[in-house]
Amino acid sequence: MVQKKEIVILTGDRPTGSLHLGHYVGSLLNRIQLQEKYKQFIIIADAQALTDNWEHPEKIRKNVLEVALDYLAVGIDPDKSTIFIQSMIPQIAELTVFYLNLVTVSRLKRNPTVKTEIQQRGFGEVVPAGFLVYPVSQAADITVVKGNLVPIGEDQLPMIEQTNEIVRAFNRIYPGDVLVEAEALIPKVPRLPGIDGKAKMSKTLNNAIFLNDSIDILADKVMSMYTDPGHIRVEDPGKVEGNVVFTYFDVFDPDEKEVAWLKEHYRRGGLGDVTLKQRLIEVLNTFLEPIRERRKQLAKDPAYVMKLLSEGTEKTQVVAEQTMQEVRKAMSLDYYNGRERR
Amino acid sequence: MVQKKEIVILTGDRPTGSLHLGHYVGSLLNRIQLQEKYKQFIIIADAQALTDNWEHPEKIRKNVLEVALDYLAVGIDPDKSTIFIQSMIPQIAELTVFYLNLVTVSRLKRNPTVKTEIQQRGFGEVVPAGFLVYPVSQAADITVVKGNLVPIGEDQLPMIEQTNEIVRAFNRIYPGDVLVEAEALIPKVPRLPGIDGKAKMSKTLNNAIFLNDSIDILADKVMSMYTDPGHIRVEDPGKVEGNVVFTYFDVFDPDEKEVAWLKEHYRRGGLGDVTLKQRLIEVLNTFLEPIRERRKQLAKDPAYVMKLLSEGTEKTQVVAEQTMQEVRKAMSLDYYNGRERR
Repeated sequence: MVQKKEIVILTGDRPTGSLHLGHYVGSLLNRIQLQEKYKQFIIIADAQALTDNWEHPEKIRKNVLEVALDYLAVGIDPDKSTIFIQSMIPQIAELTVFYLNLVTVSRLKRNPTVKTEIQQRGFGEVVPAGFLVYPVSQAADITVVKGNLVPIGEDQLPMIEQTNEIVRAFNRIYPGDVLVEAEALIPKVPRLPGIDGKAKMSKTLNNAIFLNDSIDILADKVMSMYTDPGHIRVEDPGKVEGNVVFTYFDVFDPDEKEVAWLKEHYRRGGLGDVTLKQRLIEVLNTFLEPIRERRKQLAKDPAYVMKLLSEGTEKTQVVAEQTMQEVRKAMSLDYYNGRERR
Repeated sequence: MVQKKEIVILTGDRPTGSLHLGHYVGSLLNRIQLQEKYKQFIIIADAQALTDNWEHPEKIRKNVLEVALDYLAVGIDPDKSTIFIQSMIPQIAELTVFYLNLVTVSRLKRNPTVKTEIQQRGFGEVVPAGFLVYPVSQAADITVVKGNLVPIGEDQLPMIEQTNEIVRAFNRIYPGDVLVEAEALIPKVPRLPGIDGKAKMSKTLNNAIFLNDSIDILADKVMSMYTDPGHIRVEDPGKVEGNVVFTYFDVFDPDEKEVAWLKEHYRRGGLGDVTLKQRLIEVLNTFLEPIRERRKQLAKDPAYVMKLLSEGTEKTQVVAEQTMQEVRKAMSLDYYNGRERR
């Protein structure tokens, strides 16, 4: 009889800001679905966020709560998904230190994702060591819970490669096949563009609609959305392709007939951008209102949210310590059983 | 009233082999004296030893016990010194990860000690990340117990500089002056040469007399000792300066009058190397015999030695967790009080 491998998902975010519709489409929705079928760990990667925010720990601290509020508001269920805070799992740091021996500096410098990010941040040769080695710490995040399925964007594939290189090196050197290779789960949904029409919605690019944007802010943002620059007068025919407003209709308007009719009308001419955008505002509000409402309720009781996080973190600690004991045994570092921790 | 700062010593060894007379003269003797006056932590740096022995963990494991036996045999008293195993203190790994953000890769590459060691090991550009960053993990070793006095050889001064740079950066960025700068304590005693006359006694150079060498091995080693190459016949006058045998007499023969007489006789001629060496064998055996005897007794009960190590490690964990809680508070990472650990 072939034993079916249990699927363990590791996913999460750096707590550097509130989450936006791009996160919803790209990962949150996926997680809400995955939690129904699989064991799912969601990491709030505060220690990793510090690798390029080390001078602003209070920002990270604040956003741990914001991100948790976003998670719960969109429907990530702490009874189904285990949400945990990275820095509260010392085993991740311990694994990171051991894994650093299995990766060369030149290998880390060749990582295309890190390479790009180092350029974007203008670090050059003065890159902080913590930033250069963060893929090693990601390998620790994944392997500490024995995650074998990691939902990521295509641009993050080098991270999975780095993780699996470490897993293979570890299992080759230390007996017992303790670590598990991870597979990337690349979502099929296209990326949600920013309101300015740029391919990526991001806080830094200032083109994001946040899950907790108020009705007024949402209206302002939709009204400033990129449409068809050739569509000057209402009666002109307009282009639907590359028109961000329609991309959002496709994603957020459950009434497909309406969307088809709007596209046809817009192409024909006679449908003004303002009218169109007012309808999108309604659609987005219908989608966001229950999320806003849940978020508002939860935000009144941050202690409750922290309690949920601490429970998820404690559950993760148990799994992490189990992995760590296997790692220590494989590495001949199991000096005495049941090491005391204080 | 000026409050006197408590002196906390952090010292220790990588468990890569048994300790030898060079260690005794250069550090162990010092520790035996320091433990009478100060709070002293002695780290058995197994995780650091793995940074260039990652493929041989069983060697490190074995030598943790060997080094502990050497410590106890020479008179390091576990009631006075706190001996602990590095990898059993997860807080060291946690601090290392945080400190990595405060050090640039180029700074690490400029560290003269590491630079030399990378050359010696022939790592070149394929240096393992763990090896390049080990000075950061040393900063964690020292600061986790708030060590403020670190006995080192002069060649290790860059390590203290690196530690203090991290301490200053941390205290500048994160409030509360949590971390403490360390001072180097450079022993005045000259380094004990190897039996081949080379400046440094080392296992790698194969010129060491180990604390646990048997009577026979000791005799062989002394008989092969470098003396005065110009001293061919017994009746020839011999040189005392640079003559390793006399360096050892100076250190290990408590009878200064005898040593003066031997030097005078050797210079004059008529004192053969064999006779001289036979006397040194006696002197060294007088010194080593009680150490060998204690070591033999202790080696019969490795469980007892591990118990002593686990007690020291648990004592260190309490101190380390205290530091960690202050660090977490300063870094705004104190999400909830008294984090549970399993």
